[in-house]
Amino acid sequence: MGKIVAEISVSLDGYVAGPSPTLENPLGEGGDQLHEWVFPLKSWREPHGLPGGETGPDDELVAESLRATGAVVMGRRMFSGGEGPWENDTNANGWWGDDPPFHKPVFVLTHHAREPLVMEGGTTFTFVTEDLENAIEDARAAAAEQDVLIAGGADAIDQSINAGLVDELLLHLAPVLLGGGARLFDGVGPAVPRFEVTQVLESPLVTHLRYRAVRA
Amino acid sequence: MGKIVAEISVSLDGYVAGPSPTLENPLGEGGDQLHEWVFPLKSWREPHGLPGGETGPDDELVAESLRATGAVVMGRRMFSGGEGPWENDTNANGWWGDDPPFHKPVFVLTHHAREPLVMEGGTTFTFVTEDLENAIEDARAAAAEQDVLIAGGADAIDQSINAGLVDELLLHLAPVLLGGGARLFDGVGPAVPRFEVTQVLESPLVTHLRYRAVRA
Repeated sequence: MGKIVAEISVSLDGYVAGPSPTLENPLGEGGDQLHEWVFPLKSWREPHGLPGGETGPDDELVAESLRATGAVVMGRRMFSGGEGPWENDTNANGWWGDDPPFHKPVFVLTHHAREPLVMEGGTTFTFVTEDLENAIEDARAAAAEQDVLIAGGADAIDQSINAGLVDELLLHLAPVLLGGGARLFDGVGPAVPRFEVTQVLESPLVTHLRYRAVRA
Repeated sequence: MGKIVAEISVSLDGYVAGPSPTLENPLGEGGDQLHEWVFPLKSWREPHGLPGGETGPDDELVAESLRATGAVVMGRRMFSGGEGPWENDTNANGWWGDDPPFHKPVFVLTHHAREPLVMEGGTTFTFVTEDLENAIEDARAAAAEQDVLIAGGADAIDQSINAGLVDELLLHLAPVLLGGGARLFDGVGPAVPRFEVTQVLESPLVTHLRYRAVRA
């Protein structure tokens, strides 16, 4: 069985999106700075259907994460930005167009039931109206021997940690202060797991920090 | 002229002390985990008058920071835990006994005026009732060509960042989630400086992250 990995880019002050997010700018003010490191990479460009891109240690880390991942879990806002029923949602099929960059099963946490969406390129979106643990269980089954990636947002990651389900945290720490926004780990606790660092990879735009949950 | 360096140990979820701090346990619940990495080091033990200790990359980083520092600035609670006038304060001369581990001039931000305290071993405590910028200016004069260290708490560091005075951030990131407490960077913004990473040093108990403020 694979690991359950929570992976997200985060600012120095702990935000995964900046203040005042909108449908046009879902990452909030300054939030794009969290992801500047990833856009030039070959391993980011390729699944987005873009040619070329940088190789090197950052790229290899992302490529390895993609290779290891068999299924993805994400929150509703990360999927579409929407909050209401799907028929009101301008991004009802997600942000990514007809051929999303996942190319594997994606499980979306939502309060609004909906039939699965089969997209081009191997991405399927399955909508889970039960709790997070059910979504992770479904993703585990779909991932078989591979890892399940909890891709965000902050709430989904916090809940996964609180449920004791996260085996590994992979944080991409960007050297920016956002001064507000959606905070990672804000909903964690009161009982918190122990972690130990297993990898630190430095690069100019980001520090990658990998932690393993230590279970008694 | 030296740099102004803000240096502090911080949890993965951004706290510099845990929840429910008391005079007996000023670091709050779990807050001691933030500092476990430093206690075994020779460079920590020596200024505390203790023999022996570990050497190696962590130790060298701490030793280098101590060598570079000419004066220290800290908030009142970091000095004594107290909030009221000094005569009510059980740690009125600080937490550290007659021979504090600083061995250099320390400037304490406070609302309550007081004569300077000359301690054993070269530590002097000067109490600054004006604003943070005055305290930093006094520390700069005392440090001469050496660095000024803003040692905490979170408020003092946040204010220094907001005033545009921090040249360097040195974070000791401990792989723990505290789930509450005193949050670093909570008072930062809305205008936030840019930083770039200049050093990452990995060790089992902590990741040292050094950032340089980028000025236009």
